[in-house]
Amino acid sequence: MKAVQVVGYGQDLKMAEVPDPVITGPYDVIVRIGGAGVCRTDIHILEGQWAQKSGVELPYTIGHENAGWVHAVGSAVTHVAEGDKVIVHPLITCGLCRACRAGDDVHCESSRFPGIDTAGGYAEYLKTSARSVVGIDDSLEPADVAALADAGLTAYHAAAKAARRLRPGDRCVVIGAGGLGHIGVQVLKALTAAEIVVVDRNPDAVDLAVSIGADHGVVADGGQVDRVRELTGGHGAEAVIDFVGEGGSTRDGVGMLRRAGDYHVVGYGENIDVPTIDIISAEINFIGNLVGSYNDLCELMVLAARGRVRLHTVKYPLDRFQDALDDLGSGRIRGRAILTP
Amino acid sequence: MKAVQVVGYGQDLKMAEVPDPVITGPYDVIVRIGGAGVCRTDIHILEGQWAQKSGVELPYTIGHENAGWVHAVGSAVTHVAEGDKVIVHPLITCGLCRACRAGDDVHCESSRFPGIDTAGGYAEYLKTSARSVVGIDDSLEPADVAALADAGLTAYHAAAKAARRLRPGDRCVVIGAGGLGHIGVQVLKALTAAEIVVVDRNPDAVDLAVSIGADHGVVADGGQVDRVRELTGGHGAEAVIDFVGEGGSTRDGVGMLRRAGDYHVVGYGENIDVPTIDIISAEINFIGNLVGSYNDLCELMVLAARGRVRLHTVKYPLDRFQDALDDLGSGRIRGRAILTP
Amino acid sequence: MKAVQVVGYGQDLKMAEVPDPVITGPYDVIVRIGGAGVCRTDIHILEGQWAQKSGVELPYTIGHENAGWVHAVGSAVTHVAEGDKVIVHPLITCGLCRACRAGDDVHCESSRFPGIDTAGGYAEYLKTSARSVVGIDDSLEPADVAALADAGLTAYHAAAKAARRLRPGDRCVVIGAGGLGHIGVQVLKALTAAEIVVVDRNPDAVDLAVSIGADHGVVADGGQVDRVRELTGGHGAEAVIDFVGEGGSTRDGVGMLRRAGDYHVVGYGENIDVPTIDIISAEINFIGNLVGSYNDLCELMVLAARGRVRLHTVKYPLDRFQDALDDLGSGRIRGRAILTP
Amino acid sequence: MKAVQVVGYGQDLKMAEVPDPVITGPYDVIVRIGGAGVCRTDIHILEGQWAQKSGVELPYTIGHENAGWVHAVGSAVTHVAEGDKVIVHPLITCGLCRACRAGDDVHCESSRFPGIDTAGGYAEYLKTSARSVVGIDDSLEPADVAALADAGLTAYHAAAKAARRLRPGDRCVVIGAGGLGHIGVQVLKALTAAEIVVVDRNPDAVDLAVSIGADHGVVADGGQVDRVRELTGGHGAEAVIDFVGEGGSTRDGVGMLRRAGDYHVVGYGENIDVPTIDIISAEINFIGNLVGSYNDLCELMVLAARGRVRLHTVKYPLDRFQDALDDLGSGRIRGRAILTP
Repeated sequence: MKAVQVVGYGQDLKMAEVPDPVITGPYDVIVRIGGAGVCRTDIHILEGQWAQKSGVELPYTIGHENAGWVHAVGSAVTHVAEGDKVIVHPLITCGLCRACRAGDDVHCESSRFPGIDTAGGYAEYLKTSARSVVGIDDSLEPADVAALADAGLTAYHAAAKAARRLRPGDRCVVIGAGGLGHIGVQVLKALTAAEIVVVDRNPDAVDLAVSIGADHGVVADGGQVDRVRELTGGHGAEAVIDFVGEGGSTRDGVGMLRRAGDYHVVGYGENIDVPTIDIISAEINFIGNLVGSYNDLCELMVLAARGRVRLHTVKYPLDRFQDALDDLGSGRIRGRAILTP
Repeated sequence: MKAVQVVGYGQDLKMAEVPDPVITGPYDVIVRIGGAGVCRTDIHILEGQWAQKSGVELPYTIGHENAGWVHAVGSAVTHVAEGDKVIVHPLITCGLCRACRAGDDVHCESSRFPGIDTAGGYAEYLKTSARSVVGIDDSLEPADVAALADAGLTAYHAAAKAARRLRPGDRCVVIGAGGLGHIGVQVLKALTAAEIVVVDRNPDAVDLAVSIGADHGVVADGGQVDRVRELTGGHGAEAVIDFVGEGGSTRDGVGMLRRAGDYHVVGYGENIDVPTIDIISAEINFIGNLVGSYNDLCELMVLAARGRVRLHTVKYPLDRFQDALDDLGSGRIRGRAILTP
Repeated sequence: MKAVQVVGYGQDLKMAEVPDPVITGPYDVIVRIGGAGVCRTDIHILEGQWAQKSGVELPYTIGHENAGWVHAVGSAVTHVAEGDKVIVHPLITCGLCRACRAGDDVHCESSRFPGIDTAGGYAEYLKTSARSVVGIDDSLEPADVAALADAGLTAYHAAAKAARRLRPGDRCVVIGAGGLGHIGVQVLKALTAAEIVVVDRNPDAVDLAVSIGADHGVVADGGQVDRVRELTGGHGAEAVIDFVGEGGSTRDGVGMLRRAGDYHVVGYGENIDVPTIDIISAEINFIGNLVGSYNDLCELMVLAARGRVRLHTVKYPLDRFQDALDDLGSGRIRGRAILTP
Repeated sequence: MKAVQVVGYGQDLKMAEVPDPVITGPYDVIVRIGGAGVCRTDIHILEGQWAQKSGVELPYTIGHENAGWVHAVGSAVTHVAEGDKVIVHPLITCGLCRACRAGDDVHCESSRFPGIDTAGGYAEYLKTSARSVVGIDDSLEPADVAALADAGLTAYHAAAKAARRLRPGDRCVVIGAGGLGHIGVQVLKALTAAEIVVVDRNPDAVDLAVSIGADHGVVADGGQVDRVRELTGGHGAEAVIDFVGEGGSTRDGVGMLRRAGDYHVVGYGENIDVPTIDIISAEINFIGNLVGSYNDLCELMVLAARGRVRLHTVKYPLDRFQDALDDLGSGRIRGRAILTP
């Protein structure tokens, strides 16, 4: 089959002809790719930033946001069958460690990550596990939801966690109205009656967020902390979800947080650097957020099927992978680039 | 009555003769002091560190860790009566704001803090509110439990919050085996079956913590992070409660924390300064902890009455307040200094 | 002032001239009534069903669903002021017992219940407490929201509790599409993305529920259990909220419940009568629901202000109280009858 | 190998020679039995009570409380190895359904139950799955802990669930001081500081419960409800765990429950038959409890290894299975009968 591979760091990806994956174990699932999201992480991989961490051997096929149709299943797989539409959870987890047994499979003690440390989805077929495929509604197309497999799932996980503590009358600040923030706003709207305040440097992104349901939009022009405090009666918000995590967003975000509030860290780059006296005197919490669990992905697919979460995508045939990466690198993509068969 | 007052910052406290407090409202309670804890915060007040924050007018009576006997009550007070033994919650709260109505009275929007911003308990009598007095068991003496009103309550609050997520097989690291850590270990023993690892620079403090129930003691001699990781199978602990918050304890503590673990900030001094990438990739949380609520204090008094939490105290007659402060300042107190009638 | 009073059981209510209530304590609040809901409980009171339970001395003024404007406040009241629009929580609670201190004021150990055991709101003025008045948004009229003070608050409490465990993809069955069920559906829509299935004997009520957001309507014509199981893939629903509690609804409801599901009991009349073997083998829960807390009422008023919860009302001047009761008794009210000044 | 089998309902068990189980799948585990608990359910199976429900084909090997040593593992099993001491969770679960993915594997949509619907542990070897074996501490002997695999696990599950809501000062009533109640008391002591009140008809069982940590023992001689209300200040207990579920225990238990309390149903026999008006006016909950999850079993094994949970056992060589059943049937067993190799 055709597969787009990393052949060396600092080099371009190469299209290659590789053997089709085959079923070797009872829980194996092979997915015919319908859409593979092109993510900034893919660019970082090519730059070599993940080389040491992943330890992957070159060449290998990248692509970690995948959806498609079940092509073949191992002998023990009963919950999906050939032809089913599926989205693929980014991790292959063991199902046996304490974290997996608690539903917290993201913290599996021996997971693999296709597209990062083993063959991914910039290809015709992907081999994964029964534990990683989520059947999707007939009304959804794999290419439309593929990017929800990782970026969207991360936003869902954080927003759903924040929503568990939000009550009507509470406020939630969303810092960053890009891809993740956009999903985050839609998830908050679906799961909570809290007021949503979106903050971004880009006025167009703020407008878009308001158009899909944010109650207030704040352009980060220097006065954003004051503006949010004003919108929250001077108290700050019960929750802040920071999808940026750099460029001073964390200092701003802490300034927007109410006593006893939760600061959800999602975006990364700078440090959380806060005096312990401020943490204890306001009794605030910093909550880490990684990608969501398998069950989180199931829930996100329910919201997608009901039209509650939508993502703008730009599609490229697999052969045009380089154009997709170039467009992403130069900021020409609105929403998400998706490689299609 | 006699009262020990702050008469100027940078000056010694002075004993004065002041009018006895009187009941003026239906929810007032006047407590005859049986014990008033002498706290490092009192020294900081004298140094002027709280002057601006509290805005208190001088002279005023200090002392924020109080217990005694009910001396008089307002017309609406029914849950305590003259002669009852009580411990005094450090805050006077409104009972009307959303936080008070949710049981989270520590975040009351208009609380007062006797001993900090209004007359405290280095005196014969203290005026407080029906919302602040907790009846204690006959077996307890006010002078023995007074220090649980603030320092002990803070330790209880953090340990009880941590305990809610700890299961048998989990580990909880307690950083700091001083007064708060000592209470924290006893509370953890009472509320959870998790393994407790105590870390302190002082070998005697570590030994004492082990003697009252810690499962492992680690002397912080430079190898403490490695030692804790070793004791936790290389994974780190599900929870860290940091009663120190300075001198590098937070860096150590984060190094001792397991993926998806909770870092409880209680002690303060330095900054939490952690890369957001580390927070999200390990999905760890930093949890602020202020003093406990009124109900927390009730629960702590139950543990005290059952002999599950004990505190070593050194008693001084009220007249010898200066000796107590001097002994505290020069490190001669083991446990807690208490002023008695 | 004018007040409508119970003068004897088995007799009609009588309009009387009684003294205006006056402020006697610092936390007293007097409310000028803008709307007083006419509730089936009022009919039961007249029949004498509450006589022994409440122990109220006759004559007394009834009416327990009240809203209006603050007319006077005691010296300690700061969170509302004369002229403020308010809704009145049905209970006057002590603020001092453990339940009140935990935010669970409905279980206050010494509450009073105006309209049941002390003077209520079928009158020009009502005396209540600072702990019972909730300020409402300017956009809301007291007469429009009065019925949310008790009936609506009960529905909110149950639906919000159920919502805490519901995830996208879960189903919630609402049994009973009358007044409470109607509010329940709107609350579920606001707080959860779960699918809502409404069951009622009355096809019009079912249609109305679907028109305000229920995903599925089922007419209880004998096949309702089968129909719900069909709609839930044969598994049953993760939650059932039973606003009926009689006429066989509990047997039906248990038949609609999924393994590990929650059965919320709200309506009452018959017994929950289920073999323990069925409870343990399916590991289901029966959850009692009384009226909501003060904070619940604040949250419901947020939803009302945002237009997320609406209630149909029929208004009667206070003088026409008998018409309102007659219309309610004979089933001529759609929505809720409200007495207005 | 030797195996004790059901050959017909209403007939005695028969020892048979059957083929040794063999590894056929990658997640298979074969355990050499070190101890197999003899349970009242085994008697019920022989009486035919489970025939229709399990649909098992005769003859088959019974025994559902098993522990031993790993004898062989499939190719994908990494968390246990040949020779490891293990206890066997009673269910073989799929790991793929939503319940399994949420850590709630007891509600697996396609589980099997060795000893009930497939070959169990009254034998030399048992075939189970990697998902069902829990490694135990070296200090524990399989024959000593085998009975914790089902009876003990059920008690742990209920007591740990109850403990999550219990605070110092709360009371928990344990109805039934037999095998399960005995474990329940030990678990409550380990996980909570709540006061424990044990109720049983048998004075010796009550004494034993008090000797292992219950704070109060009440002999059920007719005055037990009054006695418990007296011990709880007239309010009733915050939680009741009913390990009996028959002979009127549920009526008693509800009478012992405080407003807003939790009634944990574990034992079964009679109906929960309570007026809905009582459920809503006191806002009480009935919580079903089935056996514990895999992670529950891991936690129970931690408590066992630390000596916090102990069970009295009477051992019989496998050949003497009939004596064990006879002794159980005639009430001659104190603690639990265990078959050993």
